[in-house]
Amino acid sequence: MTVKQLGLPELVAHCVRLGITAVGLWREPVRAYGVEAAAALVHDAGLTVTSLCRGGFFTADGREADNRAAVDEAAALGTDTLVLVSGGLPAGSRDLPAARARIADGIAALAPYAAERGVRLAIEPLHPMYAADRCAVSTLDQALDLAAPFPAEQVGVVVDTYHVWWDDRAPAAVARAGAEGRLHSFQLADWTTPLPAGVLTGRGQLGEGAIDLAHWCELALAAGHTGPVEVELFNDDLWARDGLEVLEETLSAFGKITPRIGATLSG
Amino acid sequence: MTVKQLGLPELVAHCVRLGITAVGLWREPVRAYGVEAAAALVHDAGLTVTSLCRGGFFTADGREADNRAAVDEAAALGTDTLVLVSGGLPAGSRDLPAARARIADGIAALAPYAAERGVRLAIEPLHPMYAADRCAVSTLDQALDLAAPFPAEQVGVVVDTYHVWWDDRAPAAVARAGAEGRLHSFQLADWTTPLPAGVLTGRGQLGEGAIDLAHWCELALAAGHTGPVEVELFNDDLWARDGLEVLEETLSAFGKITPRIGATLSG
Repeated sequence: MTVKQLGLPELVAHCVRLGITAVGLWREPVRAYGVEAAAALVHDAGLTVTSLCRGGFFTADGREADNRAAVDEAAALGTDTLVLVSGGLPAGSRDLPAARARIADGIAALAPYAAERGVRLAIEPLHPMYAADRCAVSTLDQALDLAAPFPAEQVGVVVDTYHVWWDDRAPAAVARAGAEGRLHSFQLADWTTPLPAGVLTGRGQLGEGAIDLAHWCELALAAGHTGPVEVELFNDDLWARDGLEVLEETLSAFGKITPRIGATLSG
Repeated sequence: MTVKQLGLPELVAHCVRLGITAVGLWREPVRAYGVEAAAALVHDAGLTVTSLCRGGFFTADGREADNRAAVDEAAALGTDTLVLVSGGLPAGSRDLPAARARIADGIAALAPYAAERGVRLAIEPLHPMYAADRCAVSTLDQALDLAAPFPAEQVGVVVDTYHVWWDDRAPAAVARAGAEGRLHSFQLADWTTPLPAGVLTGRGQLGEGAIDLAHWCELALAAGHTGPVEVELFNDDLWARDGLEVLEETLSAFGKITPRIGATLSG
């Protein structure tokens, strides 16, 4: 999604060229290309799929079939992680606790299906500015509480710096996620202001914003995270530019965050 | 600020006409009108000043004199409450804990001055989307922790529904604020989407958004809040309309929230 201007074949070719060995994918371009074809394209190039984004929106009606399809697509792509964006308030509702209960029910309904297919559900807390319309799960602790009833290898969480950086309880929650074995996905994006209208497409390039990304990488490593580090930028300015150039810039910015992450990446 | 298109004399006249007996003021229009003149205008009309907004921005350099002036202005207006917007990250910094420590120092420096003048400092947690550039105090619990070293009659908190509605820990924090005697200001605004660019001027008219305002009023009353209920809407659309019309509409919307608040208001 960071370089959504690129088609899947271009993305894969550029990753190979730049030495990027793993990539997180979104459902829409995968489905447009064909799930099996996308899986072959990626694997034939020697790439690993880190995660598929996204299932969820449990607070809307009739999402069961689509969420199971998302699990199937993740399995077909060979990734073990499906990211869940859980949904905001149902239309006409102002009841956040009820929305959160409905999210819990939705996860409970989907988890066995995913487990049978070897796909972990990763609940992503979204920044509180999305609580009404995208995700009523606003903190890492809430996500961990939602995951708690399930085995860690079935349901865990996503830590995305863009969503949790402001939260003074989040560092402890990262440690908790690690201790529980639920840190299924770790994503980087920076916080830049002013936010654009709609607040969806203003995520900053790594190093250009307010977040101490090195600190968050250290927290994830200290929590035992050994999985991939994803970079997920939604940014109109980046999307308007040449995709390869953005990919190179992002890789360079990534490499500057911390030597420890660089070592992890190259290792 | 809800009707900032009105000059102070118009605002006062309209309040009197509509039976509004108390009003929260912002510093800029008060200073433009003259502090003493504004105090006379308001009091001669029989209005009470609920609070003055705002002091703070402790993470910027050289704010001491201006914050003391804010205290003086509050005292001159006869209000016992100065709202504090604490400031975000200092320029070039990514260290949120350091910003919060600096805020604590700023409050410690201002509190005795305010106490001597009979003005309570009310720390306002702002929505986490303002953490970088306006206020590193993002939750009600953080605000209460910052207030904790001081006597409750000197330093307390603001509960503004717009800023805290998403937080599953905020209801307990409202109760905590009440139990500690620190619920110095209670403000209403609704949450409407999509947010406008800059996310400063999109607060929704009461009842038009996602927040269960009746629930929050009940929480404040259950916490022992007996003070005023302020309505603080920053909204470009409302500002573009006739101020009296907006004031009437807001009063009507306020009256529909809950009978208990209506009774409190009329009582």
